[in-house]
Amino acid sequence: MEPVLFYGVPQGCSFGSIVALEWLGRPYRLCRVEMLEAWPAGYERLNPKMQTPVLLTGDGRMLTESLAILQHLAAQDLGPQGLGRAQGTPEHDRLNERLAFLSTDFFGAFGPLWTAYDRDDLDDGAKGLLRELGTQDVHRVFRVLDGLLAGRAWLVDDRRSVADAYLSGVARWADYLRVFDTRAEYPNVAAHLRKLRADPAVAFADAVERQAPATSTGAFRGHVSAEEAMSAWR
Amino acid sequence: MEPVLFYGVPQGCSFGSIVALEWLGRPYRLCRVEMLEAWPAGYERLNPKMQTPVLLTGDGRMLTESLAILQHLAAQDLGPQGLGRAQGTPEHDRLNERLAFLSTDFFGAFGPLWTAYDRDDLDDGAKGLLRELGTQDVHRVFRVLDGLLAGRAWLVDDRRSVADAYLSGVARWADYLRVFDTRAEYPNVAAHLRKLRADPAVAFADAVERQAPATSTGAFRGHVSAEEAMSAWR
Repeated sequence: MEPVLFYGVPQGCSFGSIVALEWLGRPYRLCRVEMLEAWPAGYERLNPKMQTPVLLTGDGRMLTESLAILQHLAAQDLGPQGLGRAQGTPEHDRLNERLAFLSTDFFGAFGPLWTAYDRDDLDDGAKGLLRELGTQDVHRVFRVLDGLLAGRAWLVDDRRSVADAYLSGVARWADYLRVFDTRAEYPNVAAHLRKLRADPAVAFADAVERQAPATSTGAFRGHVSAEEAMSAWR
Repeated sequence: MEPVLFYGVPQGCSFGSIVALEWLGRPYRLCRVEMLEAWPAGYERLNPKMQTPVLLTGDGRMLTESLAILQHLAAQDLGPQGLGRAQGTPEHDRLNERLAFLSTDFFGAFGPLWTAYDRDDLDDGAKGLLRELGTQDVHRVFRVLDGLLAGRAWLVDDRRSVADAYLSGVARWADYLRVFDTRAEYPNVAAHLRKLRADPAVAFADAVERQAPATSTGAFRGHVSAEEAMSAWR
């Protein structure tokens, strides 16, 4: 079977892997995981961490972690206009640095906010503290990101990469969690996100998440059930 | 000049980059940053995020983020016994997956504990809540890590990699922050850390941090001041 990406809704960071698959343009399938409802039977064998995304590769391997999936896709597209950068080059260093910042510091800053959002067992005082700490930290990482994007069209070099794909899935959380109005406070980030939202691959990923009619400009081959995908892996 | 690694004390995650430099065996220098005291003048131009590690590369570039520095070192050592894995191979996927887990989920689980440790402005109730949430999350990631190490001598394949180097710098936080007794609860992790602690590169990094007599089995060329290192970069 073609590679299958297990993506999570709502608001999965797997969004960025869908965008990268569209940009890559090679055949792939998707498998939807409703993270707040019942996870697919047997999912813990795919990923004991019970997270999305997971990529079932074309040669039958199972790969977890956005960063590893994005590097796997990037390695298939190292040409002059490609999503990846060749190992051992300064450009690869810069791509790794951007991906690392986004997946550690930037992603992690939202942690206290997600805890406040998810955990019904916490009282209002606890949730208030977590929202306060998370908001301070999200401001800090948006300041860093706004600086990285000053005067630049893309995160790495002068063209799109898997780092921009990843960003499209996580930067939206500031609005979703009502941390602040990105447009008012971080103009470079806001301009970059506006451009990304207008990209057909990002519009496709958004429509897929919302289960709206979605037009692939890549080589999307349809959804498969978790059962079907896992039987290909076993 | 040789590459210079800016490492932070106390308890910097930059520890893992020192271990990787020792294992790599190529000439390098170190520059010490006392993170709780005065940061070197001008450091914000090296790294606006005000974090360690930073690597000043041999060709005069500046690289931040442990993950990017470790991948940079790994790319110089792709042979059969090397610290890295070649781009586009299943082994590279596995290395990326392990590094991603350690630097996002595993590292991030300690976030609430470090906030409780660092922030004097929080009251006891707030610190208690953060310690409780952090402890739950550190247990979760140690369970995952213990599973990854079951029946294995190293994190990737059957030999050491930059993922093991990174782990040596962050897994020690469970003891430092008195979260739990790793030996009693996570035997596979404890056995791996015991082996790492006995490694000459890890012993060297530990002695460097403590400013004790340190014996390099790599190609350490001594400390430089921040001023000297930064003048090479400018």
